[in-house]
Amino acid sequence: MRSFLKYCKFSDFPIENLPYGIFTAPGKLKPRIGVAIADSILDLNEISQLFDGPELKKHQHVFKESTLNRFMGLTPKAWKEARSTIQNILSEDNPVLQNDDILRKKAFTRQSEAKMHLPAQIGDFTDFSSSIHHAKNAGNLFRGKENAIATNWKHLPVAYHCRASTVVISGTPIHRPYGQAVLEDGGLPVFGPSKLMDYELEMAFFVGGTNNLGEPIKVENAQDHIFGFVIMNDWSARDILSWEYVPLGPFVSKNFSTTISPWVVTTFALEPFKTDNYPQEPEPLSYLRHSDNFNYDIHLQVDVSPKGDTMSRTVCRSNFKNLYWTPKQQLAHHTITGCKMNPGDLLGSGTISGESPESFGSTLELAWKGTKPRNLLDGSQNKFLQDGDTVTMTAVCKGDTYNIGFGTCVGTLLPPKNIY
Amino acid sequence: MRSFLKYCKFSDFPIENLPYGIFTAPGKLKPRIGVAIADSILDLNEISQLFDGPELKKHQHVFKESTLNRFMGLTPKAWKEARSTIQNILSEDNPVLQNDDILRKKAFTRQSEAKMHLPAQIGDFTDFSSSIHHAKNAGNLFRGKENAIATNWKHLPVAYHCRASTVVISGTPIHRPYGQAVLEDGGLPVFGPSKLMDYELEMAFFVGGTNNLGEPIKVENAQDHIFGFVIMNDWSARDILSWEYVPLGPFVSKNFSTTISPWVVTTFALEPFKTDNYPQEPEPLSYLRHSDNFNYDIHLQVDVSPKGDTMSRTVCRSNFKNLYWTPKQQLAHHTITGCKMNPGDLLGSGTISGESPESFGSTLELAWKGTKPRNLLDGSQNKFLQDGDTVTMTAVCKGDTYNIGFGTCVGTLLPPKNIY
Repeated sequence: MRSFLKYCKFSDFPIENLPYGIFTAPGKLKPRIGVAIADSILDLNEISQLFDGPELKKHQHVFKESTLNRFMGLTPKAWKEARSTIQNILSEDNPVLQNDDILRKKAFTRQSEAKMHLPAQIGDFTDFSSSIHHAKNAGNLFRGKENAIATNWKHLPVAYHCRASTVVISGTPIHRPYGQAVLEDGGLPVFGPSKLMDYELEMAFFVGGTNNLGEPIKVENAQDHIFGFVIMNDWSARDILSWEYVPLGPFVSKNFSTTISPWVVTTFALEPFKTDNYPQEPEPLSYLRHSDNFNYDIHLQVDVSPKGDTMSRTVCRSNFKNLYWTPKQQLAHHTITGCKMNPGDLLGSGTISGESPESFGSTLELAWKGTKPRNLLDGSQNKFLQDGDTVTMTAVCKGDTYNIGFGTCVGTLLPPKNIY
Repeated sequence: MRSFLKYCKFSDFPIENLPYGIFTAPGKLKPRIGVAIADSILDLNEISQLFDGPELKKHQHVFKESTLNRFMGLTPKAWKEARSTIQNILSEDNPVLQNDDILRKKAFTRQSEAKMHLPAQIGDFTDFSSSIHHAKNAGNLFRGKENAIATNWKHLPVAYHCRASTVVISGTPIHRPYGQAVLEDGGLPVFGPSKLMDYELEMAFFVGGTNNLGEPIKVENAQDHIFGFVIMNDWSARDILSWEYVPLGPFVSKNFSTTISPWVVTTFALEPFKTDNYPQEPEPLSYLRHSDNFNYDIHLQVDVSPKGDTMSRTVCRSNFKNLYWTPKQQLAHHTITGCKMNPGDLLGSGTISGESPESFGSTLELAWKGTKPRNLLDGSQNKFLQDGDTVTMTAVCKGDTYNIGFGTCVGTLLPPKNIY
């Protein structure tokens, strides 16, 4: 498949990708829906009339919205039709946009001139803990080797509800938060800016469609409710976390900000990169079982660049396929009680660590709770995040003839605000 | 203060109360904002033009909304002006509504003819664990007497993020949810409907106004962000909970439904019922300290009536004032990291248990995890909730000349849906 737009083989956004995002640009001040293609954005607001297939003809208004919620609220059939319509419009054989100078000018914006916004109004945000390597490492550090993996962990996708109001778009600076922490075992808590700031390498998916309250989304239908994926940095204040999390789980140590990448890559684009599910032993209960693959080969990387340092340092290389629980299992478990899901809800994977140290997805693990210096891939050392550090996460599926990229998820840790 | 509407001394909704809610009624199909007065609802949509004071003249549109979010998004000054405008309109000295037959007919709806809806679109929902008696009882049952109160509990208001999409309005039936649980110590989990269904007696407040991301709401300003209170039943599946909650906290055991009462009682109405804060030892860290009282004397009661039983049984009498942490402290802690709060966010108190068994706010405590029969106040016995049980919670401040009531928070537990 070839587009009339030209780009190199390693572009994140070939015609096979077509991720959705929300952008503003000079002359386009109200946020609108766009699709990334090469270095440009195709503005769906300007071409909504071209979605004239049987599924979308009556729903063209969803492309006039300022969030993706209503589009996500449609069906997989409609999403598929949208994708094929866009591929058709962009293909080198189709003159409708290619040869219409006026429409083409209105319909394309350079990504470098656009400002990206959250793809959806996130109603609820949940974070799982689905990497067995991360669970083992974190458990080992917080609860000792013998209790590293909780007894329930292999029976259900452990998760907790998170704070939707503080999910921010890539590029938003993060201030080191205040909170209370205990600095030495058995000591009293002290108040001040967090001393142990960390990132967590995650991916997350947006829910599509909805279910009725009281009606679970069964594992065999779950894929119809998985719209697409983004990269997520689940910033964590480790010292605040370890003091607060017993018994009700993480709270303010996670609620100051969570950063996501702006482009939502659909399951259609990811389809060629499906890979075997992680082996599960013991076999999960029947409501969590599915025999088809729903795991992806997505290469993940974390770079940290200190303030003023132009060279960024790669601190982690991991892969989505390290996840023990599949997104379908996550969704089936989340709704087993009949929990209502809405289009635009966000479900995080949990930190995606692999087996070897260079694939650990958080500083907690890399620096082994601060007791070991951080093993950077370039050989240098560091502990937890310093003020001014910029954390950049990337994700890409590598194909023979094209890549499916997610762009970047970037955030800079700034000093604490001068409040107290 | 006297209204031209007549009601008895024990009405929940005298002219001193004036709680806000969202209702529909015959001829009023689009949800609208109303104020409860005696047995009626004053329809603010019909009288929005009467809000002509300096704070509200430019914001009359908030009374045309289908949720309270935009009204909650204004300032305490505006809320106060609204209250005094409504009191003025309803007073026996004011002819504007009293003597205008046409307007009066449009402006009043009987509560018995109205259907109530959620007061606000709840962006995020958080539940605290602020009753020391409940924390002690639950901790004792789940973790043994020695670890009953976690070491952090007296230093910070422990809380966790909950599921906003499944907060439902009083009267919504609840189906017994499915999930996995371990039936005997050390056994494997089994799948099926929850066997240990419970209510939790709570109250919750709606957030008013907003803060910028990264800027804490300080304890000294917190009251400006507390709009008003409702009763809350935080339904819990105890068997699912005890299996899933380590280490990240409650998840699906709480996400199937949470019921709230429909009328939001403002802090202005509660002001005369302020009482001493619960004594705190040790003194909390400075960011949590406030010397003024922000605790309320609100009598709480839980009744359970089995299916077909016309007589309900009172199972619990408690009081809001049992809460160790004040709502101001809850909000200051929630935002200490700069967490953004939005108007319409909901913050629950946690189960409000008192010291003595008849004031325990959950069956878990009353039936001592099923090992003791539930000590009903009428002498009868029961364990956890049975299918068909209707749980009714009430809350009322008892004054010399009037009461401030919250109405009721009602829900019936239905059998599991026939899904699996």
